[in-house]
Amino acid sequence: MEWSGWGDPAEAPSLSPAALELLRGALGVRRPAPAVAAEDVRLPQVRLDDRLREELSAIVGVEHLRLDDRIRLLHTRGKSTTDLLRIRSGDADDAPDAVIFPGSHEEVLELLHRCGEAHIAVVPFGGGTSVVGGLQPRRDGFSAVVAFDLGRMNRLLELDEESRTATLEPGLRGPDAEALLTDRGYTIGHHPQSFEYASVGGFAAVRSSGQASAGYGRFDERVVALRVATPRGTIETGRAPKSAAGPDLRQLFLGSEGTLGVITAIRIEVRPVPVARVYEGWRFDSFAAGREAVRRLAQDGSLPTVLRLSDEAETAVNLARPGQVGDGGGAGGALAITGYEGKADEVEWRRGAVSAVLRALPAEPDPSAGADWFDDRYKGPYLRDALLGAGALVETLETATFWSGVERLYHDVGGALRESLTKLGTPPVVLCHISHVYASGASLYFTVGAAQLDDPVAQWHAAKSAASDAILGAGGSITHHHGVGVDHREHYFREIGPTAIEALRAVKATLDPAGILNPGVLLG
Amino acid sequence: MEWSGWGDPAEAPSLSPAALELLRGALGVRRPAPAVAAEDVRLPQVRLDDRLREELSAIVGVEHLRLDDRIRLLHTRGKSTTDLLRIRSGDADDAPDAVIFPGSHEEVLELLHRCGEAHIAVVPFGGGTSVVGGLQPRRDGFSAVVAFDLGRMNRLLELDEESRTATLEPGLRGPDAEALLTDRGYTIGHHPQSFEYASVGGFAAVRSSGQASAGYGRFDERVVALRVATPRGTIETGRAPKSAAGPDLRQLFLGSEGTLGVITAIRIEVRPVPVARVYEGWRFDSFAAGREAVRRLAQDGSLPTVLRLSDEAETAVNLARPGQVGDGGGAGGALAITGYEGKADEVEWRRGAVSAVLRALPAEPDPSAGADWFDDRYKGPYLRDALLGAGALVETLETATFWSGVERLYHDVGGALRESLTKLGTPPVVLCHISHVYASGASLYFTVGAAQLDDPVAQWHAAKSAASDAILGAGGSITHHHGVGVDHREHYFREIGPTAIEALRAVKATLDPAGILNPGVLLG
Repeated sequence: MEWSGWGDPAEAPSLSPAALELLRGALGVRRPAPAVAAEDVRLPQVRLDDRLREELSAIVGVEHLRLDDRIRLLHTRGKSTTDLLRIRSGDADDAPDAVIFPGSHEEVLELLHRCGEAHIAVVPFGGGTSVVGGLQPRRDGFSAVVAFDLGRMNRLLELDEESRTATLEPGLRGPDAEALLTDRGYTIGHHPQSFEYASVGGFAAVRSSGQASAGYGRFDERVVALRVATPRGTIETGRAPKSAAGPDLRQLFLGSEGTLGVITAIRIEVRPVPVARVYEGWRFDSFAAGREAVRRLAQDGSLPTVLRLSDEAETAVNLARPGQVGDGGGAGGALAITGYEGKADEVEWRRGAVSAVLRALPAEPDPSAGADWFDDRYKGPYLRDALLGAGALVETLETATFWSGVERLYHDVGGALRESLTKLGTPPVVLCHISHVYASGASLYFTVGAAQLDDPVAQWHAAKSAASDAILGAGGSITHHHGVGVDHREHYFREIGPTAIEALRAVKATLDPAGILNPGVLLG
Repeated sequence: MEWSGWGDPAEAPSLSPAALELLRGALGVRRPAPAVAAEDVRLPQVRLDDRLREELSAIVGVEHLRLDDRIRLLHTRGKSTTDLLRIRSGDADDAPDAVIFPGSHEEVLELLHRCGEAHIAVVPFGGGTSVVGGLQPRRDGFSAVVAFDLGRMNRLLELDEESRTATLEPGLRGPDAEALLTDRGYTIGHHPQSFEYASVGGFAAVRSSGQASAGYGRFDERVVALRVATPRGTIETGRAPKSAAGPDLRQLFLGSEGTLGVITAIRIEVRPVPVARVYEGWRFDSFAAGREAVRRLAQDGSLPTVLRLSDEAETAVNLARPGQVGDGGGAGGALAITGYEGKADEVEWRRGAVSAVLRALPAEPDPSAGADWFDDRYKGPYLRDALLGAGALVETLETATFWSGVERLYHDVGGALRESLTKLGTPPVVLCHISHVYASGASLYFTVGAAQLDDPVAQWHAAKSAASDAILGAGGSITHHHGVGVDHREHYFREIGPTAIEALRAVKATLDPAGILNPGVLLG
């Protein structure tokens, strides 16, 4: 992963002169905003004394405790736009003092014990792809901050073919987990945009949802058991797919964002690798018409594996190709992507059923849109990097609510983004799509672009704060699949209320009495 | 509800002389065990002093606080076999001192506040159908015990047709909730055996699962929002079908069995009333062959709405008609019930797909078995009453695990029941069926019959304890849909471990600082 941006720098696109011209014209982007050189990034002094270094090294092996600047830089914060803006400006104040690479559940337990005694804050670190400040713990009050990079815990612990479950270690990145499983004929089918770099532990800890959630479900819906290392010891939860033995403890650790323990094993439902895959597009007259269509599909149970619906603005932008920007040819309406994965006959049957519904609504098929979407489905973060460098401010945010509230949520959040950024003198482009559907509701995923001001972090905070207020005001949840981290904490507290926060803090106080686990994240 | 048994006494069957002869022959039942007369039941002295009575009455209205013996008797414990054995012997030691009928969320809040101050234990009471001691709180250490009968909170608060959700008050019994919804064209589709008497609040509080769970899902899977009255105030949870805003708090209150708060509103996904319904039967050579078949259906996604599979013993007994007992004609193999509900074309398509799989396995269709099952699907508790009166000991228990553990779980639990009861001189009949299936596992539901000994409560405790040990030993969950109550507490603690119990107790201490909510249930 690149310290100043996403993924592999070789994959990052460069913007064409035409695209740059469009940024200047449409958004008023004034000048490029290049990153500082890596050697100019300011890292704080390492606060870990020799005795502690030796003790922690003794647990994992000396080569698995790293203090060098390069490794610390690569474990500084996540990949939100404000994370990137900060680090590109040379600010790595949140760098951990050390990065530790535990190799087993037992090593994690031992490390937690020692860190608790020494009052060292711990950031569980998977792929480093948080976009909500989930890797940015409070430093004050702690003797040091260490990241536990779980990358060495990357085994497939068990494949139970009869139960169709796989037990995975948390440090497995998306592609590695899939490779281990597809070798044996199975798949998780979880493909968020961060798939290429995010880890299985992260998927669980933040309740990730993938592009094929309509067919495979969210990650958290398919987790059937967890092993968690806490400062108070090991918790194992999940003896059956479903149980009436009290509150569902899996659902307490899913979404806990490293604040209650370190997830060290995840047992998840898997499915046979699909033999057939078809992705296609459908065009609706309007986003409103498309919303009704995808709601009907979700409620009648004829769902494709992949289902997303862009609003008019996103449809227009997504269809634009560098050479055709501004032509606007054929870019009207609202584009939906439908994808089908499974056995050949099942794919054909579902595709037929869905297509019949859509055709009757009416929607127009746009077959090539599916393949285009598929080819580019992990490219969003790279494009953002290029746009940031060119002087644009680009970020995404997401929310969810029940169907009866979706229209208001769409209207209010889009309005808040446009109003707040326009007030700052940078009228934005706001794009939106429905990214995940359920029988009772859906998520909305917004992409915002504007010209960068001199303090783009403050600029985005103003817009994000207005959008977050609008989300809560319209009855939505502050996050559907990105998580809470530090960035959503204030609105998360408002969403669930002070009594619920107190209840969760009581759980934390029990499992993490010294409060060392990701302090400041989620629960404050 | 009858104080000494299930439901409406007029519905209870009487056993034929042939059936009684069978009980004597097969189980060694020696003599009838009639219930004492209602007036001979011993109720403890009311412990609520005049001042408190007046204060609590002032909150709900004097007619909604009841101290008379009849009402107290009807709110004593639940409907497990040991509950019935105790009350039929005249023991109502667990009767609440008073029964309060709150009419609103606000009244519940106020009552909880006053009960907290006065250190009065509170039992939230829905249908009174617990079979695990969920209505039997610890008395000592409290000034009194009161039941909150939620029967007046029986409104449909909102039907959101666009989101396909209904918001219900907790006191609605199954049939009343369905009637309110079917009037508007919708159904919950939740039909546990207790359906006719159990309440919506109870379904939520104990994670109930219905006979049509293969098609409609468990009750807890379909709850999208909850309002809970706690001694610390109101908690509202659920702004979207799914969210990444921290741990899923709905899953903390679902299964909390009245120990963390009183659920006062439940928003649940509903579906259009099915226009087509077909129930039929299939016969497999063996339970093992049938297990493979239902696993395949669950994993390949071609599930009927109703799916249950009886083992050979249950198949033989269920098919027996009073006039044909002992003939054994046609009672071989393992009978599965498949039911389909939905739109006509969808039912036909799913029925065709499932039937093709089953026929090829091979299984033999047994069309009339479906209608027979449907007619009798709520009759089990009545039959138990008749058998108890005749001197038999009859009880059920259930568990769940992953598919790879189902065979061992079946073997070990059946073995433990047979061994423990045989050791006591009462060799039992043990029947089992798979009651709920998932892609990764299934639940097993056991029915046990034996002759009653002089102390049938102790007799059952010995058998149940052996079965519960076997469940944990085989990796199962102590309960799939009955809940924990008092009866499963010890094994629940062993299942989730002391650290998790401490974490949940910390939640309870936050929400219920005086510890008045169902003390002794679930969390001890």
